[in-house]
Amino acid sequence: MMNTPLTLRQLLERPVEYFPDKLIVSRTSQGQFHYRYRDFNQRVNQLAHGLRDMGIKPGDHVAVMAWNTFRHLELYFAIPLVGSIIHMVNFRLFPEQLTYILNHAEDVALFVEDSIASIVEPLISQLPTVDQYIVMGDEYTPEIPGVIDYETLLAGQPDAFPFPDLDENSACGLCYTSATTGNPKGVHYTHRALYLHSLTLCAADVLAMSERDVVMPVVPMFHANGWGLPYSATWVGATQVLPGPHPTPMDIVQLIQGEHVTVSAAVPTVWFAVEQLLAQDPSLNLRTLRTVPMGGSAVPRSFIQHMEHDWGIPITHAYGMTEATPLATYGYVKSAIAKMDESTRYDYRAKQGIPIPGMRIRVARRDGQEVHHDGQEMGEIWLQAPWVADEYYHDDRTSDTFVDGWFHTGDVAAIDPEGYLRLIDRTKDLIKSGGEWISSVELENALMGHPAVAEAAVIAVPHPYWIERPLACVVLKPDTTVKVTAEALLSFIAPHFAKFWLPDTIVFLPEIPKTSTGKFSKVRLREWYHRGDLGTPQPNSL
Amino acid sequence: MMNTPLTLRQLLERPVEYFPDKLIVSRTSQGQFHYRYRDFNQRVNQLAHGLRDMGIKPGDHVAVMAWNTFRHLELYFAIPLVGSIIHMVNFRLFPEQLTYILNHAEDVALFVEDSIASIVEPLISQLPTVDQYIVMGDEYTPEIPGVIDYETLLAGQPDAFPFPDLDENSACGLCYTSATTGNPKGVHYTHRALYLHSLTLCAADVLAMSERDVVMPVVPMFHANGWGLPYSATWVGATQVLPGPHPTPMDIVQLIQGEHVTVSAAVPTVWFAVEQLLAQDPSLNLRTLRTVPMGGSAVPRSFIQHMEHDWGIPITHAYGMTEATPLATYGYVKSAIAKMDESTRYDYRAKQGIPIPGMRIRVARRDGQEVHHDGQEMGEIWLQAPWVADEYYHDDRTSDTFVDGWFHTGDVAAIDPEGYLRLIDRTKDLIKSGGEWISSVELENALMGHPAVAEAAVIAVPHPYWIERPLACVVLKPDTTVKVTAEALLSFIAPHFAKFWLPDTIVFLPEIPKTSTGKFSKVRLREWYHRGDLGTPQPNSL
Repeated sequence: MMNTPLTLRQLLERPVEYFPDKLIVSRTSQGQFHYRYRDFNQRVNQLAHGLRDMGIKPGDHVAVMAWNTFRHLELYFAIPLVGSIIHMVNFRLFPEQLTYILNHAEDVALFVEDSIASIVEPLISQLPTVDQYIVMGDEYTPEIPGVIDYETLLAGQPDAFPFPDLDENSACGLCYTSATTGNPKGVHYTHRALYLHSLTLCAADVLAMSERDVVMPVVPMFHANGWGLPYSATWVGATQVLPGPHPTPMDIVQLIQGEHVTVSAAVPTVWFAVEQLLAQDPSLNLRTLRTVPMGGSAVPRSFIQHMEHDWGIPITHAYGMTEATPLATYGYVKSAIAKMDESTRYDYRAKQGIPIPGMRIRVARRDGQEVHHDGQEMGEIWLQAPWVADEYYHDDRTSDTFVDGWFHTGDVAAIDPEGYLRLIDRTKDLIKSGGEWISSVELENALMGHPAVAEAAVIAVPHPYWIERPLACVVLKPDTTVKVTAEALLSFIAPHFAKFWLPDTIVFLPEIPKTSTGKFSKVRLREWYHRGDLGTPQPNSL
Repeated sequence: MMNTPLTLRQLLERPVEYFPDKLIVSRTSQGQFHYRYRDFNQRVNQLAHGLRDMGIKPGDHVAVMAWNTFRHLELYFAIPLVGSIIHMVNFRLFPEQLTYILNHAEDVALFVEDSIASIVEPLISQLPTVDQYIVMGDEYTPEIPGVIDYETLLAGQPDAFPFPDLDENSACGLCYTSATTGNPKGVHYTHRALYLHSLTLCAADVLAMSERDVVMPVVPMFHANGWGLPYSATWVGATQVLPGPHPTPMDIVQLIQGEHVTVSAAVPTVWFAVEQLLAQDPSLNLRTLRTVPMGGSAVPRSFIQHMEHDWGIPITHAYGMTEATPLATYGYVKSAIAKMDESTRYDYRAKQGIPIPGMRIRVARRDGQEVHHDGQEMGEIWLQAPWVADEYYHDDRTSDTFVDGWFHTGDVAAIDPEGYLRLIDRTKDLIKSGGEWISSVELENALMGHPAVAEAAVIAVPHPYWIERPLACVVLKPDTTVKVTAEALLSFIAPHFAKFWLPDTIVFLPEIPKTSTGKFSKVRLREWYHRGDLGTPQPNSL
């Protein structure tokens, strides 16, 4: 058989040839911009010429700090197609983390969006490897010496670039994980990994990505390849909607309504906010959505059921991470389960699904043996696939995590007899109470099942006898008129847990602090606790 | 990223782990047999032990001559998974061709079904490399010395075989093309090619193969991996229906009805016969079919329309060949076309579709340049993909066909502005009349659009002035009561063609001879013509 390499070039060539008139819609601070795939392709080629003129060489790391926009999508293709590596930077990291990753990657150039440039300016003196800065967007008063304007870089460039033949195993992308302790860790993506991951998302029993779809990644494009949506959507020639800078929940709702979005993806907190808008204005209609893959953290069963029942929005659990490009499992409903009663179906849909084709999963006990598939025994999730990392980029911590061909995720799960994965917790978020494990995630899901609760995060706090005990932080919905007490919430969840699982304290907060990727920041909550800002644990009152 | 190889092992592991209770149904001469994927897997492992006991080594060619049965499917996996190569033999070839390919492949063993064993017996003395013969099925009185019974080979073997780690570029399958001239040519399939091909069939815009499907390949499993259906269906855990020995059109209808088949595939002649059954018995209902990919030869637009309108059977054109594993294009209806009027939609559906993701196609003029995408200019189809052959196995004819990284198919097509391929003819079936090309396929499709015509095949016959002229062979439907004349048929098609395209003669036959893969045998028709059995060409009467 031909040794045709699996590269991102094929993902661009097909839509340009067969779907040149399909649209890419990009929200900007001035309104909406849209163009066709044929225009997109022309600009990718012009950008490739611009990169060459800048002296960017194959194998160079090129940093990008941008919202989800058409220019970000152009960089997603042009940088890899010339043989360089796009470093998708999470610009919400702390300045010292940003400096760390830009230096660690030895980025030679940095593309930054106008609205984000102010984050970069103070760092410049600490970024010795970055030779060139390119600003995207009109709203920038140059403060960076020698800064290049993105549109000037493209202007007048030829429409066609002679893209080189590339080795499918060469790196084309780089993301850093938002590590909760220590410095972020880098993951190199290869052309081969992204080709296979993108194709697998198209499978009927995964996202079933189609040319008929209108795809809107709300998940940032710096977060594990935007969960792979932009590459997969481009390949099939789907209409793409990019929500641009600072999208509010109302922006998201309006884009879904206005563009008839069929597939969107975001972390649960975004959808919690969208749901509150829907509750306030029943005239809003998001029923064009055919699937909303949700990951980053577990979504309560009650929320999945509520969104589908009341708003016709089918949420599908997915599970993945930066090291897995990111997708590992998808909440496919087996044909046998689809025939079961509604309640049972939601039981399965509240789990994290089954491995996507090509992904091997082992849930391992401490001795490395697979746990029983009884839905109860807990173990660490290990992954193996052609789109799973086998190392952290130039990082001594590699050997702790990648062992004998398996990636040890640090996530704890159980597997039921049908093979569905149920995510229980991060290893480090599990609460070890008197020798027994308590899952913070399961307590959170139960608390968020209460109609008055908007958000709930459970952390371990030290205890003189039990070593650790759970403490729950709860945010009530703004429109809650009834007084909800800690006792009432504990009574609400008590039927579902052994008594020792119940939190000793429930603290009501105006908001749960979030990480740069929108997840609950348990690190911050623990800091607050140790500063005394969350009170001291009391025996629970039940 | 991990260097996890792309192998068929992953295609078997997933359904066994996640869909062990799904069924494989196999029609036998005694009725129906069915078992679960878990049983299937156990027998694949036992068969692997049997192969080892027989002394089969990695890299060995193992021939299989069988109908579509559960045992054939077991061989589809066990032989590649132990590192050997399954040679899927078209047992309808002439004896001298069979002897040629079995010797050319140097097969070390031959698995043969009981009902086919009589084909093999006379050849044994001419097959020096074949050391062992294994017969499948109960209805065989041993005539082959030392023959092994398939069930005896499996009996008592352990349930688990330690499958070796394999290089994804190693060969795992072998098919020979049914060449119309010269000896058959062999194509080696690799694990990588079959992994990628199988995954691509799962894509939403291709076959969208799903666990929910009930898949029945009527196309023989010796014909280009059964068009890839068995591998793809196994991977997703679909229910499989294998139609067994000598399926009649009524067998096929009954299996679709009885098993609620959703995806089936066969050459057009099979569906022409099925349609005649439906016409005779309106109580038959095949509406569970959600897609019927059809390839091997072009299907008339009128037939596609009729099958969907009258019987609710959605036929989708596909195009491929042995050298391409086989799929190259699929009749995906673009979203823009789906919104057009019905007649336009059928115009597109009568074409061969657009390349599946990962497949590159060039329709090339004689000078190698791409034809204009005007739907008119004709050129030869060239293919490039990781699942396209780059050589014929041990064959001097390789260099004629595989040139500069492209496979030259010998098929002639045009491409329209939307990128849809319209297959015009095999290069060698085109009729060269007075320096102009006439497409036999287009004339055939037009003739088969007449309600009284069941089959039509057009060949070139010599002409003293024009060099070649078209001659049409027509089979009328058995229930045709009206007298249909050659003049009436020519009048029927005349509006669609330049006058010089119209056949000089129409010959009525009781049947068109078929090749071993069910296509019209134009070689036989030309032989009949040259023997004087089809009459002599006359100027057409219009």
